[in-house]
Amino acid sequence: MEVTEILKKYSADIDQEITAALEEVDPETLRQASEHLVKAGGKKLRPSLVVLSAEAVGGQVKSALKTGAAVELIHTFSLIHDDIMDQDEKRRGKPSVHVLWGEPTAILAGDTLFSKAFETVMRSEEDGVPAPTILPALNAVVDSCVKICEGQALDMGFAERTDVTEEEYLNMIFKKTAALIAAATKAGAIVGGGTPEQIEALSEYGRLIGMAFQIQDDYLDVASSEEDLGKPVGSDIVEGKMTLLVVNALARASEEDHNRLLTILKEEGDEHVSEAMEIMEKYGSIEYAWQVAQEDVNQAKQLLRDVLDDSPAREALLLIADFVLQRSN
Amino acid sequence: MEVTEILKKYSADIDQEITAALEEVDPETLRQASEHLVKAGGKKLRPSLVVLSAEAVGGQVKSALKTGAAVELIHTFSLIHDDIMDQDEKRRGKPSVHVLWGEPTAILAGDTLFSKAFETVMRSEEDGVPAPTILPALNAVVDSCVKICEGQALDMGFAERTDVTEEEYLNMIFKKTAALIAAATKAGAIVGGGTPEQIEALSEYGRLIGMAFQIQDDYLDVASSEEDLGKPVGSDIVEGKMTLLVVNALARASEEDHNRLLTILKEEGDEHVSEAMEIMEKYGSIEYAWQVAQEDVNQAKQLLRDVLDDSPAREALLLIADFVLQRSN
Repeated sequence: MEVTEILKKYSADIDQEITAALEEVDPETLRQASEHLVKAGGKKLRPSLVVLSAEAVGGQVKSALKTGAAVELIHTFSLIHDDIMDQDEKRRGKPSVHVLWGEPTAILAGDTLFSKAFETVMRSEEDGVPAPTILPALNAVVDSCVKICEGQALDMGFAERTDVTEEEYLNMIFKKTAALIAAATKAGAIVGGGTPEQIEALSEYGRLIGMAFQIQDDYLDVASSEEDLGKPVGSDIVEGKMTLLVVNALARASEEDHNRLLTILKEEGDEHVSEAMEIMEKYGSIEYAWQVAQEDVNQAKQLLRDVLDDSPAREALLLIADFVLQRSN
Repeated sequence: MEVTEILKKYSADIDQEITAALEEVDPETLRQASEHLVKAGGKKLRPSLVVLSAEAVGGQVKSALKTGAAVELIHTFSLIHDDIMDQDEKRRGKPSVHVLWGEPTAILAGDTLFSKAFETVMRSEEDGVPAPTILPALNAVVDSCVKICEGQALDMGFAERTDVTEEEYLNMIFKKTAALIAAATKAGAIVGGGTPEQIEALSEYGRLIGMAFQIQDDYLDVASSEEDLGKPVGSDIVEGKMTLLVVNALARASEEDHNRLLTILKEEGDEHVSEAMEIMEKYGSIEYAWQVAQEDVNQAKQLLRDVLDDSPAREALLLIADFVLQRSN
C-alpha cells in the first residue's frame, strides 16, 4: 500500500471526531475560525500515526480515534499561533486564520483547539479506554505541548544568533517538531494497550522520524527543485534560517568561508544563494544532513522490528518512516 | 478571620507549586515571560477556592494544591492573551507581558502556562490523588477553558452590537468569568473526595459567586468612588461596554432614553457619563444589578449550608461569598 493510501484510510473517521469536537463551539465566528485550518486539508500524518501505533500493539482503531483527533487539533493550534508570530499570511494554500478573522480571534481559535484537544483525549472513555490508561496518554500529549512552545521560543531566539551549535539546533527541532510526533505514537501505543517496552519503542520511533522529517525539510530546501518544492530553492538561506546544513557548515568552515556564509544569511535577497550552497557543499554539510536523516529513519525502523510482531500496521509504520525521506517536498 | 487572611493562608504553598511548575521552562526568556504575571501579585482567590472546597468536603490541603496552582495558571494564561487582544498595556500595576517581551513571546507564554496547568493537575498523583479522581477534576478545568475562549469571543462580538439581551449578557459573563471559578470549586471538591451532591453544590456555589463577582464589577463602576476604584467612575460607559446595567436600562428605557444612552455609549470622551448614569438610575438598573448579585450570593451561601457540615473551611467559603459584594473595587 502507498503511504498516501495509508493516510487516507483513517481520514474520514478522524475528520468526524474533529467535527464532533468543534461543532458546539459558540459563537459561530469562533467555531468557523477554529475549524478553518483543520478543514483546509493537511496530510493527517499525526493522527494516522496515533491509530497505527494503537493497532500495531494489538489495540482497536476506535480506541485511538479521539486521541488521534486531539493530536491533529494540537498540531493545528500550533500552526495558527505560529502563523501569527511569524506573520505568515498563507497556510495550506489558503489565507491564515489571522488574515481572515484578525489576530484576536486567531489567538482565541488556537486556544479553543488546544482546550478541545484535551477534552477529546478524555472523551476516549466513551470508546472504552479506561481512566488509568487515559491519564498517561494525556500526559504524553500535554508534555509535547510544553515542548512545542519551548521549541518555537528557541527557534525565534535563534534568529538573533550566529553561534547556534548542532546540539542546540537538534534540541530545538526535537521540541518544535519531533515531540508532537513522538507524543502521537506514544499516546497511540498507550491507548492501544501496548507493553511498557512497546510504548517506549513507539515513542522513540516517533521522535526519530520527527527529527528526520525536519532535517529532510532542511535538506530539500537546497537539494530539491523549485518545481517539487513549490517555492524557490534556497528559501531558508534567503530567510537567514538556522538549519542543520547551516549550523554544520558554520562549525566546519574556514574563518573566511564561515564569515562569508554568515554575511549571505544576513543579507536580504537571493543573489548569493548558490554561493552559500557551494560553501555547504564544500564542507559536506548537505550530504551530512541527508545521512543524519537516513540514520534516524533506519534506527526508527529497527526499533519497530525489535518490539512489534509483523502486522499490516507495523508495515504501514515502516513505510511511513521511508516516506519521510522519499518525499521531495 | 478576614478574607484577606484566608487568601494569604495558602498563598505560599500555591506559589511554591507554581514556581515548581515553571522552573524548567526553557529558554530563559520564555520562563521569565511565563512567570512575570503570576509573580506580579493577584489575590489568589481561585486557588484558595480550590483548596477550601477540598477541605470543606473533608479532604487534605495537600491533595488540592497542584489543582489550585493549575487554576491560577489558567487564569493567568487568559489574562496574558486577553491583554494582547484588548491591547491593554498594564496589568496588576505592571506592564503587560506583550509590552515587555513582544506579542509573539506573550502568545507563547500564555500557551506555556496553559500546557503547564494541565500537567500540574495530572501531577496531583504524586500527592496521593488517584487517577480515577484526577480525570474528572481535569475535565472540570478543561471544560472551563473552552468556556473562557467562548466568553472572550462573545465579549468581543458584543462590542459591535447594540441589541445584546440580558440572557446573552449573563451567558457571556458565565463563560468569561464564572466558569473558571466554578471549575475551581468543583475540581477542589473532586480532589478532596466530596460526594456527587457536594461536588455539584460547590460547582454551583462557584458559578454563583463568579456571576456576582462580575455583576458587582459592573455595579461598582457607577456606584463606587474614583478613590476606591483607582480609576474614574463610569469608565465602562466611556469605553461603551455592555454591562448588566446597560443591557437592563436599554431594555427598559423609553425609545428616547434608549437612543440617548446608545449615543453616549458610542461617543468618545467622558462628557456625558453622568447623564448615562441618570438614565440607568431612572429605570432602576443600578439597583437591579446590585440585587441580582445579592441574590446570587445568598443562593450560593444557602447551597453550602445545605450540603456541608460546619467547618472552618465552610465558614471561609461563606465569608468569601460575602466579600464578593463587600469589596469596593
